[in-house]
Amino acid sequence: MPNTFGHLFRITTWGESHGGGIGVVVDGCPPRLPLAVDEIQRELDRRRPGQSRLTTQRKESDRVEILSGILDGFTLGTPILLWVRNEDARPEAYEEMREIFRPSHADYTYQAKYGIRSWMGGGRASARETVGRVAGGAVAGQFLRRAFPSLKVVAYVSEIYGFLAPEATALLDETLVEANPLRWPDPDTLSEAIALVEDARKAGDSVGGVVTCRVQGMPAGLGEPVFDKLDADLAKAMLSIPAAKGFELGSGFAGTRLRGSQHNDPFYSEGGRIRTRTNRSGGIQGGISNGEEIFFRVALKPVATIALPQETVTEKGEPAILRARGRHDPCVLPRAVPIVEAMTRLVLADHALRQKAIGWEFRP
Amino acid sequence: MPNTFGHLFRITTWGESHGGGIGVVVDGCPPRLPLAVDEIQRELDRRRPGQSRLTTQRKESDRVEILSGILDGFTLGTPILLWVRNEDARPEAYEEMREIFRPSHADYTYQAKYGIRSWMGGGRASARETVGRVAGGAVAGQFLRRAFPSLKVVAYVSEIYGFLAPEATALLDETLVEANPLRWPDPDTLSEAIALVEDARKAGDSVGGVVTCRVQGMPAGLGEPVFDKLDADLAKAMLSIPAAKGFELGSGFAGTRLRGSQHNDPFYSEGGRIRTRTNRSGGIQGGISNGEEIFFRVALKPVATIALPQETVTEKGEPAILRARGRHDPCVLPRAVPIVEAMTRLVLADHALRQKAIGWEFRP
Amino acid sequence: MPNTFGHLFRITTWGESHGGGIGVVVDGCPPRLPLAVDEIQRELDRRRPGQSRLTTQRKESDRVEILSGILDGFTLGTPILLWVRNEDARPEAYEEMREIFRPSHADYTYQAKYGIRSWMGGGRASARETVGRVAGGAVAGQFLRRAFPSLKVVAYVSEIYGFLAPEATALLDETLVEANPLRWPDPDTLSEAIALVEDARKAGDSVGGVVTCRVQGMPAGLGEPVFDKLDADLAKAMLSIPAAKGFELGSGFAGTRLRGSQHNDPFYSEGGRIRTRTNRSGGIQGGISNGEEIFFRVALKPVATIALPQETVTEKGEPAILRARGRHDPCVLPRAVPIVEAMTRLVLADHALRQKAIGWEFRP
Amino acid sequence: MPNTFGHLFRITTWGESHGGGIGVVVDGCPPRLPLAVDEIQRELDRRRPGQSRLTTQRKESDRVEILSGILDGFTLGTPILLWVRNEDARPEAYEEMREIFRPSHADYTYQAKYGIRSWMGGGRASARETVGRVAGGAVAGQFLRRAFPSLKVVAYVSEIYGFLAPEATALLDETLVEANPLRWPDPDTLSEAIALVEDARKAGDSVGGVVTCRVQGMPAGLGEPVFDKLDADLAKAMLSIPAAKGFELGSGFAGTRLRGSQHNDPFYSEGGRIRTRTNRSGGIQGGISNGEEIFFRVALKPVATIALPQETVTEKGEPAILRARGRHDPCVLPRAVPIVEAMTRLVLADHALRQKAIGWEFRP
Repeated sequence: MPNTFGHLFRITTWGESHGGGIGVVVDGCPPRLPLAVDEIQRELDRRRPGQSRLTTQRKESDRVEILSGILDGFTLGTPILLWVRNEDARPEAYEEMREIFRPSHADYTYQAKYGIRSWMGGGRASARETVGRVAGGAVAGQFLRRAFPSLKVVAYVSEIYGFLAPEATALLDETLVEANPLRWPDPDTLSEAIALVEDARKAGDSVGGVVTCRVQGMPAGLGEPVFDKLDADLAKAMLSIPAAKGFELGSGFAGTRLRGSQHNDPFYSEGGRIRTRTNRSGGIQGGISNGEEIFFRVALKPVATIALPQETVTEKGEPAILRARGRHDPCVLPRAVPIVEAMTRLVLADHALRQKAIGWEFRP
Repeated sequence: MPNTFGHLFRITTWGESHGGGIGVVVDGCPPRLPLAVDEIQRELDRRRPGQSRLTTQRKESDRVEILSGILDGFTLGTPILLWVRNEDARPEAYEEMREIFRPSHADYTYQAKYGIRSWMGGGRASARETVGRVAGGAVAGQFLRRAFPSLKVVAYVSEIYGFLAPEATALLDETLVEANPLRWPDPDTLSEAIALVEDARKAGDSVGGVVTCRVQGMPAGLGEPVFDKLDADLAKAMLSIPAAKGFELGSGFAGTRLRGSQHNDPFYSEGGRIRTRTNRSGGIQGGISNGEEIFFRVALKPVATIALPQETVTEKGEPAILRARGRHDPCVLPRAVPIVEAMTRLVLADHALRQKAIGWEFRP
Repeated sequence: MPNTFGHLFRITTWGESHGGGIGVVVDGCPPRLPLAVDEIQRELDRRRPGQSRLTTQRKESDRVEILSGILDGFTLGTPILLWVRNEDARPEAYEEMREIFRPSHADYTYQAKYGIRSWMGGGRASARETVGRVAGGAVAGQFLRRAFPSLKVVAYVSEIYGFLAPEATALLDETLVEANPLRWPDPDTLSEAIALVEDARKAGDSVGGVVTCRVQGMPAGLGEPVFDKLDADLAKAMLSIPAAKGFELGSGFAGTRLRGSQHNDPFYSEGGRIRTRTNRSGGIQGGISNGEEIFFRVALKPVATIALPQETVTEKGEPAILRARGRHDPCVLPRAVPIVEAMTRLVLADHALRQKAIGWEFRP
Repeated sequence: MPNTFGHLFRITTWGESHGGGIGVVVDGCPPRLPLAVDEIQRELDRRRPGQSRLTTQRKESDRVEILSGILDGFTLGTPILLWVRNEDARPEAYEEMREIFRPSHADYTYQAKYGIRSWMGGGRASARETVGRVAGGAVAGQFLRRAFPSLKVVAYVSEIYGFLAPEATALLDETLVEANPLRWPDPDTLSEAIALVEDARKAGDSVGGVVTCRVQGMPAGLGEPVFDKLDADLAKAMLSIPAAKGFELGSGFAGTRLRGSQHNDPFYSEGGRIRTRTNRSGGIQGGISNGEEIFFRVALKPVATIALPQETVTEKGEPAILRARGRHDPCVLPRAVPIVEAMTRLVLADHALRQKAIGWEFRP
């Protein structure tokens, strides 16, 4: 199911970077859910390019249109079609990509796989494909908020070009994150972090970093025990995001340098609820949520498109030098934040439905 | 599909740690494939406990039985049922787990999810569940070897309790890895690495580490472009392994500290084949294999079961001290190696079939 | 997967009868396939209402738009979004349905399932939902024609209100079928058949009947042996069509009145190809095609919407008399023909890909 | 997913007619369900051959073994492995099938599909494959009985070799059905019906017929609106049963000979519940249950294996005469009854879980 994600709450995305438009079918959303279109639009606006100098200057108004699945502001339980038109496509800016493979892009691998490719702007491999994910994730988010009123999903840029943000406090303050163009959680180090992106941009180069995502208010019991572990599905969701190269839950790679006695999370009881004193597990144990904060980190490589000349080859294998002209981000991180959140919400909504499906009471 | 993995080449595992047995249904394996049972057994032997002092002393002969799907040594194209009996189950050794939640195990989360659990040995959350994966992966491996004769999949322990193995040479020498109980790739540092595990064992403690997996000889074009990216499916496969906490492909988290100009892999042409000069992509670009070596790292936390006393609670939430008595591994890493390889082979076999399915030639 | 059909070649339909539009995502279509949009349009035109007095007078131009998945007339291997806008929606014509359940429609069951419904024109339960199926089936048809050049899929109305068409000759002459508004295969009895529909229309009533579908030129070996039998998937496909009440393959229900010795199809050899002398199997044995003509019949009940007054209840359960005013077909059969063909093609395309996926050659 | 059935409540069957055994993995069954093994055994006994002269004399004790998924008589929510060993396999009885294709069996089509086949007893195409279905259906049945206490699923032979049983009364009396070897619902016509089978048996021939299935006590709202209609899934389930050639719901093929005004089921209100005065819909409208009795008919062709000599060909296409010697049923109908019930229960259980998954309450 190459373009479908989720088992019960599922999205199918479609659309190339350049073409009629790009969108998503959301299938499996429960009926009678009040659905606010402006909230979907708000999420798309957060993902939209051209928000600051830190990101690509491509202009897309990205106005979402809903063609099905809602009536008088409520979901019908039927497929919801959300899409935006492609507007500011300037294929001539991509003319040099017609026959040249851009290094560390998907041009060559698409050609190897399909024997044909939409060379303008990367086709499906464009970050523009994530429009459908963000729209679908916004629907999932509205479902989750109604189903689990205390749930919060907040992502932010926690590391940029090797520079780490001070560890975030327990409190998730998304307004702080949204208040700056880098979606950086710490005002004190913000200018330093932005400077790293600016330097790269001026040099015609790009930088990578890490996005951290934190989920609070999710009850225990979500996730499947073997293959569809909640963390396994999150890992897949995150690695499916363009430019993602790594995922770690809780203590992650650093946790491998501890002993079991240092790493285990002791249980205790608090107000009738079983909790853990530490949370190196990252809120998931044996693939199933334990009610603590779920948190994980996603590694995002530096954007592949840079202004600097690069060695490459043509489709025929002849040596070539690429000098990219398209409009691109020096740093994909801030725009990745709403995408990480959207994919997280889709995973949580799917597992919420799956868990509900088996919740029957039997008398012995 | 909680217990099924794969879309076309798929396995469904079943069985608790303690019960009649544990096994797998392999569905979708192409017909007419010569299938050697002793090779499946060999993989199970590699996974089996009791191989050295480094791993649990639980004795399981783990003799694989095949009940269906083959005739005269060839696959029929029908489901292959592989299983092993549970033999050395001593539930009394787990008696204390009946009412006590073991820290950083899945006891509590299973209870939260299902309201019931097989408390003996962890049920499905036991590492024993991986018997089915390894058996299924061995079938996938035999398929891959016939389909792609130059394919090699080799995993090894590359880091233990923070101690890194020297970077492996280009050549994958699995005999070197198999020659020592730690599955450590470097003879010179082997004793130092083993000492770290021994120290933990003597202290009644455990250590974690990293398994690296490398795939050579896979053609370009495998993987789906959006959600079922080859690396996304590998990430899910790896995070579904018990104790896994992280995954990184190619440059991974370290690559986020580079600029695009440093990170991109330049293309060049070699003998009519398009290749990359560096391989920070880890052999996958845009979710699709590019023909270079696929390599990734998997973080595995220290084993949760330790001999040291631990703070925890009972099912009723009362404070308790756990003093585990079951037989367990001070270090899960060496036994994780064949599991990582098995899951890798399952992902590759599945994507090989998926790619074949769309390989039609049309004349314009 | 309520709105998705197919495993490898798959469609996801979306859209209500009244709303922004109605359409389909076709996912899994092989790349590099020449795709003629006018052929998709032609199939939609065949399904379109208002073609004659025999069918509803609702006017829909049903111009198909393609938003993704093709470049310069070739498929990219990525999702193909096809849709048509809803134009001639007159919700006021459905005002009486707002609170009244129409007998033998899906109004009540949708309400029971979802607790909400798009009461205008039946929402997803409207025959208009089949626009997406026909568009998707037209893509499948173009794939099949290239993959199996001698393939022919032809459906026609073989029985109307109990009046049977003379048994069709071996030759499938679709022009004959298309030449009349009833899609009746026999010119001699055509006027008699049409009169049955006309009589019902004048009486404000409706009639049902049977559509026969015949597939020639499909090679042996398609279909899965157990649950996804080719005939099982065809049965599901047909019963998923609005108003369908029955399916029979080959000898069908009549074949149950024969003995085995009368029913079995003897094998013989013809020009190196194994064939059957009779074809009571309907071209499928053990769920797998045998290379003979595949043929089956689909029972379609009389259209539920009639002009005659009917006893029913309101949403609150109060007695009511329904006098429908919407524009509807006195006989759904002719418009069902292209839908039956579309669903048939979707099943065949899916199984063609599935069979290709396992077609590997191994040397012993 | 060739050997898997169901979306949430799902079974995967495995095993050839001759080999180590035959069985099923039941995945997705809710946890904490009391599961009686003897009830599973009882269903298998009903399916078992050798119950009377009407069916094959092959002796199989078919003792079910459970290897996983239950603890102390309750389901764990994990996969349940059920299987029976193959005992009375006499492959020599099938020696003549090694190179000869049996008419109207799956020998030829399996060979065409896979290029290899388990020639002994038909492999997966054997009716023995249904052991897994019946075992899985028995689990589904125990779930349904707890979830919907008033639910009843009863199938019976309603037509044999063209001879119809008198229309059954409203009351489903399964003891009446089970009291005779034909599973015939009417004592008065029983001997006449049995004589038809006996005559065929003595003539070395076989007969077909129709099984009717009736479901009472299912609430309204089950089923999906488009492709996974409840009747579409039932049709697939039934056509996946060996020898099935047709399916009709409610009025079925006969209903096509009525006008809409005669066919529609008027609604009325009874004790606060909305009901229909007639039930030509067969309990399903628009793919969703309406709370009335669900009933359908399944056409089963005469058994293909007969003692009479038959014209056929060898694998090489040479003419041959088949004189079958294996032990087979002169009439598959009575043994099909528990299989029809099992598949029905699997469909209902799956849709019950699917419906539960979307049942969320939101305040506006």
